[in-house]
Amino acid sequence: MASIELGTYLRGNSAKYHDCIEACVACLVACEMCSDACLDEKDIAMMRSCIRLDRDCADACTAAIRAMSRGGPLSAELCRACAEACDACAAECEKHAGMAEHCRLCAEACHKCAEACRRMAA
Amino acid sequence: MASIELGTYLRGNSAKYHDCIEACVACLVACEMCSDACLDEKDIAMMRSCIRLDRDCADACTAAIRAMSRGGPLSAELCRACAEACDACAAECEKHAGMAEHCRLCAEACHKCAEACRRMAA
Amino acid sequence: MASIELGTYLRGNSAKYHDCIEACVACLVACEMCSDACLDEKDIAMMRSCIRLDRDCADACTAAIRAMSRGGPLSAELCRACAEACDACAAECEKHAGMAEHCRLCAEACHKCAEACRRMAA
Amino acid sequence: MASIELGTYLRGNSAKYHDCIEACVACLVACEMCSDACLDEKDIAMMRSCIRLDRDCADACTAAIRAMSRGGPLSAELCRACAEACDACAAECEKHAGMAEHCRLCAEACHKCAEACRRMAA
Repeated sequence: MASIELGTYLRGNSAKYHDCIEACVACLVACEMCSDACLDEKDIAMMRSCIRLDRDCADACTAAIRAMSRGGPLSAELCRACAEACDACAAECEKHAGMAEHCRLCAEACHKCAEACRRMAA
Repeated sequence: MASIELGTYLRGNSAKYHDCIEACVACLVACEMCSDACLDEKDIAMMRSCIRLDRDCADACTAAIRAMSRGGPLSAELCRACAEACDACAAECEKHAGMAEHCRLCAEACHKCAEACRRMAA
Repeated sequence: MASIELGTYLRGNSAKYHDCIEACVACLVACEMCSDACLDEKDIAMMRSCIRLDRDCADACTAAIRAMSRGGPLSAELCRACAEACDACAAECEKHAGMAEHCRLCAEACHKCAEACRRMAA
Repeated sequence: MASIELGTYLRGNSAKYHDCIEACVACLVACEMCSDACLDEKDIAMMRSCIRLDRDCADACTAAIRAMSRGGPLSAELCRACAEACDACAAECEKHAGMAEHCRLCAEACHKCAEACRRMAA
C-alpha cells in the first residue's frame, strides 16, 4: 500500500474535513515518531522539550481526528486547540531541524496541520 | 474500591493539575456513559445532538487528562478546549435533564469540569 | 490533497508498521464515520450494536496507531486486540451492508485492518 | 477534592466495570507521570525502555477506560490487551523501583490494573 485514500470513508458531515483529517493524521504520526526518535539522540536531555511538545501535540491531533471523522459538532474547537499545539511543537522542532531529520519532518507536518486546522476553525 | 486517590500518582509538574484531572476523568466517564445510555432511550432521534456532543467532549477530556497527567507544556491549551466542549455538552444535556438521569449527571460533570479547566487555563 | 503519504514520517522502528498504520487509520476513520451515520438512519434502534462496536473498534485502532507510529514495544499486543475488535465490528456491519453504504464501507475497512493487524501481531 | 467517586457516573452496563475503570485510570495517570519523570532522571538513556512501555501502557489503559465507561461490547478484549501491557510495564518499572519513586508507584499501579483487567476479561 503506497498511501491511504481516506476520502472513501468520509461521508456527510465529515467530508468537508478531508484535508484537515489527513494533515492531522500525518502530524500525529510525525509527533509520535519524533518523540520516540528523540530518545535515541545522544543528547537526550536537549530533546526533553521536544518530546513533551510532541506528546501534547499528538494528543491534540488525536482528539481532532476523531471528532472530524464523524463530523462532530465541536470539531472547530478541537481544531483550534490542535493548531495552537502544532505551532508550539513546530517552533521547538525547528530548533533541532538542522541536526535531527525527525525534528525537521515533524516541524513540517506540524506547520501543515496548523494551517489546515486554522482553516477549519475559522 | 470506593474511590480513586490520584494524588499518589501525581508528582512534580502534574501535581498542580490534581483537581482538574479528577474533574476531567469524571466528565470523560459521564460523557461516555451518557452517550451510550442515550442509545437506549425510546426517542433516540431526540438524543442525537446529545450523543454527538458527549463524544466530542469525551475526546477533549481524554486529551486534557493525558497532557495534565504528565505536566505537559500544552495543558492549558487543551484545558481551554475542554472547557468549551464541556460548556456545549452541558447546555445540551440540561435540555434532557428532567427526563433522563444520565443527562442530568453528565451536565453536572461537564459543569464541574468546565470550571476546573477554566481555572487551569487562566 | 488526494491521499496521505505516511511513509515520509515513519522512521526506524515504526517503518515496518507502515501498511498496518494505514489500515488502522482507514478503519478508525470508517468506524467514527459509520457510528455517526448510523444515528441518521430511520431505524436507529436497529443500529445500536453497530454504533457500539464501531466505537470500541475506533478506540482499539487509536491505541494501535499511536503505539505503532512510535515503534512501541507493545505494538503487537495492541494489534492483536485491534484485530479482534475489527472482526466483531465487521461481522455486525456486514448485516447492514446491503441497506447502509456506511456499514458496507466500514466492514471493508475493518476486514483490511484485521488482516493487517494479524500480520503484525504474528 | 480529595478523590473521585466515579460510581455516580456509572450506570447500566458500565456499573460492573467500576473497580476496573478506577484501576485503569490510576494506571493511565501513573504511566503518563512516570514516562515524563523518567525524562528528568540523570541517566535518561537507562529509562528509554521504561518510557516506551509507559506510553504503550497508557494507550492501552485509555482504550479500556473509554470502552468500559460506556459498557462497550469489546471491553473484555481491551482489558485483556491492557493486562498484558500492564504486566510488561510493571516488569520494567520494577527494575528501577529502588532508585526512582515514580517507577515504584507506576509498577504498583500497573500490577493493580493488570489484576483488575484480568478479572474483567475472564
